[in-house]
Amino acid sequence: MNELPTSMRASVLRAVGDIAVEDRPVPEPGPHEVLVRVAAVGTCGSDTHYYEHGRVGGFVVREPLILGHEASGTVVARGSEVTGHAPGTRVSLEPGIPCGSCHECRSGRYNLCPEVRFFATPPVDGAFCEYVTLHEQFAYPVPEDMSDEAAALVEPLSVAVWACRKAGVSPGSRVLVTGAGPIGLLAAQTARAFGATEIVTTDVSERRLRMAAELASAETIDVRASGLADSGYEPDVLLECSGNPKAGAEAVGTLARAGRGVFVGLGGDELPIPLAHVQTREIELTGTFRYANTWPTAIALAASGAVELDRLVTHRFGLDRVPEALTASARDETAVKSVVRPQE
Amino acid sequence: MNELPTSMRASVLRAVGDIAVEDRPVPEPGPHEVLVRVAAVGTCGSDTHYYEHGRVGGFVVREPLILGHEASGTVVARGSEVTGHAPGTRVSLEPGIPCGSCHECRSGRYNLCPEVRFFATPPVDGAFCEYVTLHEQFAYPVPEDMSDEAAALVEPLSVAVWACRKAGVSPGSRVLVTGAGPIGLLAAQTARAFGATEIVTTDVSERRLRMAAELASAETIDVRASGLADSGYEPDVLLECSGNPKAGAEAVGTLARAGRGVFVGLGGDELPIPLAHVQTREIELTGTFRYANTWPTAIALAASGAVELDRLVTHRFGLDRVPEALTASARDETAVKSVVRPQE
Amino acid sequence: MNELPTSMRASVLRAVGDIAVEDRPVPEPGPHEVLVRVAAVGTCGSDTHYYEHGRVGGFVVREPLILGHEASGTVVARGSEVTGHAPGTRVSLEPGIPCGSCHECRSGRYNLCPEVRFFATPPVDGAFCEYVTLHEQFAYPVPEDMSDEAAALVEPLSVAVWACRKAGVSPGSRVLVTGAGPIGLLAAQTARAFGATEIVTTDVSERRLRMAAELASAETIDVRASGLADSGYEPDVLLECSGNPKAGAEAVGTLARAGRGVFVGLGGDELPIPLAHVQTREIELTGTFRYANTWPTAIALAASGAVELDRLVTHRFGLDRVPEALTASARDETAVKSVVRPQE
Amino acid sequence: MNELPTSMRASVLRAVGDIAVEDRPVPEPGPHEVLVRVAAVGTCGSDTHYYEHGRVGGFVVREPLILGHEASGTVVARGSEVTGHAPGTRVSLEPGIPCGSCHECRSGRYNLCPEVRFFATPPVDGAFCEYVTLHEQFAYPVPEDMSDEAAALVEPLSVAVWACRKAGVSPGSRVLVTGAGPIGLLAAQTARAFGATEIVTTDVSERRLRMAAELASAETIDVRASGLADSGYEPDVLLECSGNPKAGAEAVGTLARAGRGVFVGLGGDELPIPLAHVQTREIELTGTFRYANTWPTAIALAASGAVELDRLVTHRFGLDRVPEALTASARDETAVKSVVRPQE
Repeated sequence: MNELPTSMRASVLRAVGDIAVEDRPVPEPGPHEVLVRVAAVGTCGSDTHYYEHGRVGGFVVREPLILGHEASGTVVARGSEVTGHAPGTRVSLEPGIPCGSCHECRSGRYNLCPEVRFFATPPVDGAFCEYVTLHEQFAYPVPEDMSDEAAALVEPLSVAVWACRKAGVSPGSRVLVTGAGPIGLLAAQTARAFGATEIVTTDVSERRLRMAAELASAETIDVRASGLADSGYEPDVLLECSGNPKAGAEAVGTLARAGRGVFVGLGGDELPIPLAHVQTREIELTGTFRYANTWPTAIALAASGAVELDRLVTHRFGLDRVPEALTASARDETAVKSVVRPQE
Repeated sequence: MNELPTSMRASVLRAVGDIAVEDRPVPEPGPHEVLVRVAAVGTCGSDTHYYEHGRVGGFVVREPLILGHEASGTVVARGSEVTGHAPGTRVSLEPGIPCGSCHECRSGRYNLCPEVRFFATPPVDGAFCEYVTLHEQFAYPVPEDMSDEAAALVEPLSVAVWACRKAGVSPGSRVLVTGAGPIGLLAAQTARAFGATEIVTTDVSERRLRMAAELASAETIDVRASGLADSGYEPDVLLECSGNPKAGAEAVGTLARAGRGVFVGLGGDELPIPLAHVQTREIELTGTFRYANTWPTAIALAASGAVELDRLVTHRFGLDRVPEALTASARDETAVKSVVRPQE
Repeated sequence: MNELPTSMRASVLRAVGDIAVEDRPVPEPGPHEVLVRVAAVGTCGSDTHYYEHGRVGGFVVREPLILGHEASGTVVARGSEVTGHAPGTRVSLEPGIPCGSCHECRSGRYNLCPEVRFFATPPVDGAFCEYVTLHEQFAYPVPEDMSDEAAALVEPLSVAVWACRKAGVSPGSRVLVTGAGPIGLLAAQTARAFGATEIVTTDVSERRLRMAAELASAETIDVRASGLADSGYEPDVLLECSGNPKAGAEAVGTLARAGRGVFVGLGGDELPIPLAHVQTREIELTGTFRYANTWPTAIALAASGAVELDRLVTHRFGLDRVPEALTASARDETAVKSVVRPQE
Repeated sequence: MNELPTSMRASVLRAVGDIAVEDRPVPEPGPHEVLVRVAAVGTCGSDTHYYEHGRVGGFVVREPLILGHEASGTVVARGSEVTGHAPGTRVSLEPGIPCGSCHECRSGRYNLCPEVRFFATPPVDGAFCEYVTLHEQFAYPVPEDMSDEAAALVEPLSVAVWACRKAGVSPGSRVLVTGAGPIGLLAAQTARAFGATEIVTTDVSERRLRMAAELASAETIDVRASGLADSGYEPDVLLECSGNPKAGAEAVGTLARAGRGVFVGLGGDELPIPLAHVQTREIELTGTFRYANTWPTAIALAASGAVELDRLVTHRFGLDRVPEALTASARDETAVKSVVRPQE
């Protein structure tokens, strides 16, 4: 590994709307870390939100920050204590390293760890750069025939796997997915892989609904044309991926007895749940925050073809074009997922 | 049992605000039923609501209806197939008989059975009368030293047991109970019996809060004086018993990571949940509808003294004074639970 | 339906080893029952055991008994209260009718109901005959393109679905199935449908192992040739379908930390579990008894092609050849599943 | 803390049957560790086993080892990153520090961590000495009025809490505890605190059974006099604390439908479970290995008086009499729990 460079290019958010490529030192792996040459990084709505607003909720960008947290790459060096992960191993990166000893971590809910260090969340840098370091246990080898981009998109797939677990999707489930953006499309496919026998997806874009139908064999409802309630569909499970509180509230109102609704999409401060419906049907509701223990399952689902990741990638950009990557969806309605490729 | 009368007195709701005692035939038990001489019947907010409005939600009183569903009594006759329940057995009555074969019943959620026949819910008569029949499996023998009134109040105690089960109250739980009416007082006591180590109860009545402190060793917050959020209390479990959506929403906002909130109290159409809090902490929310499989546990808790039922009874009335029983709480702030005693 | 005959042919077990066709009256459906013209009935090891030994465990044949409990057919008449199930509806039959009101039934474990009336279990007759009656809620309509034989085999598929549920098979599970008889073959396929990513099946028959490989993409181990422990496989889940206690005990010893083992196969009085392994890895073990709430899921899995039922059927017999059907497996190693077709 | 000594006395196991007090350096706390002056250390069967056999299962003593893992004490110094735990804080010690990043740790099952470093388990030293260091998150402050000895016995109480959780003991449970040694006595008390309404304890010592009756209001069976099966008791839950496989197997055979049995006691290689009983009643069985996430609950149960710890302590020894402490139970039938007090 003596050929490793000492400096690298990184795409840095310096102020609201100001991203530029800068030189940074290549990080050195700690004893239990690996150094990864980044191959592909998906863009996420939170990256765009930091770029445009300088904050997401209570997380405020106060120092220059490297964005990007959906990443894959190749191990090029290892810390002193790492015995697996031979250099050359291609890996998908789980971007949040919890403390490992707090109450949440010890209860198996490490996604709720208040001390987690998560890529691209101030003040922790992300992966829009040439090299990153990561704890060995959070860098997962992927099969040879999985593309770099698919390996990066294991991250949003993990969001969908977590949502399906939280929702208890199981063979025979009837599922409603509200919203057919990248997360909704993954949620519908994952629900299918978990055994759901009926899946209905809603959106306001015909193009997206067509993708839901193709990728997840979902029935679709264009909610511009007809109301969800009119459909008469009574799902066991709701995966709310639109981030629209009004859509979410209406969807909760369709759930069958003992149904479960999971709020995945972000958006809005309050969601007015229909109380009598929730009580008389004993509906269970929860929200998801990232994921825990999902990577092995997500990789297996992608590797077996049960979930299709590559087809979500519509646009690709080099490091110097990160701003374009972050705004592609707003400018181009054909954009589903944009990927940054730092080595190109 | 040849001394059984053929007719009995019953308190009948004939129209909104019009309740009168009428003569009715003593019902005959079916093959799997017992005939019970009613000893005590608690009054519930739903009885009062039927009396004052002629309906509760979608349930509308169209024919004369006997109210009352929190009942105890003594078995005086048995159907042809009943082998247990010797005449003279004192019993607490579970007032809803599910169909036993639908999807909900077969899944162990018989409280959600769409075909359930529930006392005092149109068109099924209740227990403000001298005799009722009930399926043998829903009439539970009680210990000798349990009073008739306590045996009747096993019904609201079941509401509390169900709420604590749904909420996952377990040894070490920190619990918030909003509302210290009869259900809130039972919920706090039951949470204590389930092992909760910290219990905070809120209300707007000093008298009720004092009862919560005495009966459940709860700390109390008078929310007229100080806000709940100001307390800094971060409970694992919320048992919402006030029926006030605004109070419920605020209480949800205090829940700790992975906390669970259960809406027990009825009231309001919408409850505006704080979405980001529910997501970033992965709060679980649900509502309860009656109860399932609670009677043995509830009787055990009352019999052991872990939950105190008799002290809730503040007022007693004969069959001819049911209207007074139903309005006692509104007229008299010392009223907690009013009981009707049909044999007096 | 005025053309229904009043008598029918039935295959009756009269004594150990003595089965003959007799005339019986066509049963009349009770108020909530349907009358079904039987199309296909799978044979099961328990049928063969009753035929050869006159008993299975504590269940002893004391009166002439009609065997057969894996049945499908067509509704030809309905009781007075049945509103669905139009005559002509093709149905798969769930052969056990629980009491609906005992503690087990009300807890959602109706398979453990001590009062259940189960086909072909003394003194309740089964389905090796032309017509049977059944509670409407236990006769499940099947899709048009599902064969009669597949509709019958939804019963053993339910055994597999129940086992996978009890075992918690979920996407990513690594599963070991011991025994590749009909139940093992269904268990392996069902585990695949539940998302298992690695499945290993063991048996002593090359032919059966080949079927496991074909139907469930399972890896296979011929345990005559090499020990299970030698494989180094550490499954998350064991589905024990061989009924061989020694094989079961060895298989438990391979389970990974927090693994789950389910004993599905019957056989032997004692199973000597490796105690230290069970403790230091906190293995969970249980057995299954029939199934509960499985038909909708099982039908969905068969209808979608996720589980292949028709290919299990190797032999077919008319009502007059039931003894041959019950002994086919012992005589012919190519036999997997024999089906009786009462109308032929 | 500049008065801390640099060397301390430690009781060291040097060979089978050879324990002597040696001088050792006082350990220095790492950044996240606290240094604790040890106040009390309970003795456990595993300590005695190491002393007498030099090994427990696969754990072999190859270098001199300090035994003792049930410990309490006072914080006297803190690592550089520790902000809580002011010197002087009295603490109960959780004696196993898991790696925090493996699959088991991240799943909330840190007790199954293959990299755990556990007190008094080769090659990790224990607490029969004057000072130990421990990760701050594993040193739990205790209330002022909890004795040092009770704070030490929070460790075996944690074993009982874990067993009750694994067994699903909840209000109304009927529980069988086999064995009334220290763990059985704690299991019975803990089951009571979890809401069990019937508890039966078995043993072969009248004295121990009397303690079970006094401490946990348990009914008792002296199994020398009468068989367990003869009692007709059908528990929901079995907590096997005798370590006798034959007793364990017989006890499993008494479990009610859907009952749960947990093997807590160590002993024997094989436990011959009654297979047909386990299957037809769908009994669930598991074993426990130490505990996870139990300290806060265990401290709360002891602090509230729900579980009595001090009364278990029958004998006390200084550091120089550890061999006597480890053999007290064998020599003296009045011994329940012996405690080593290193400062005396």
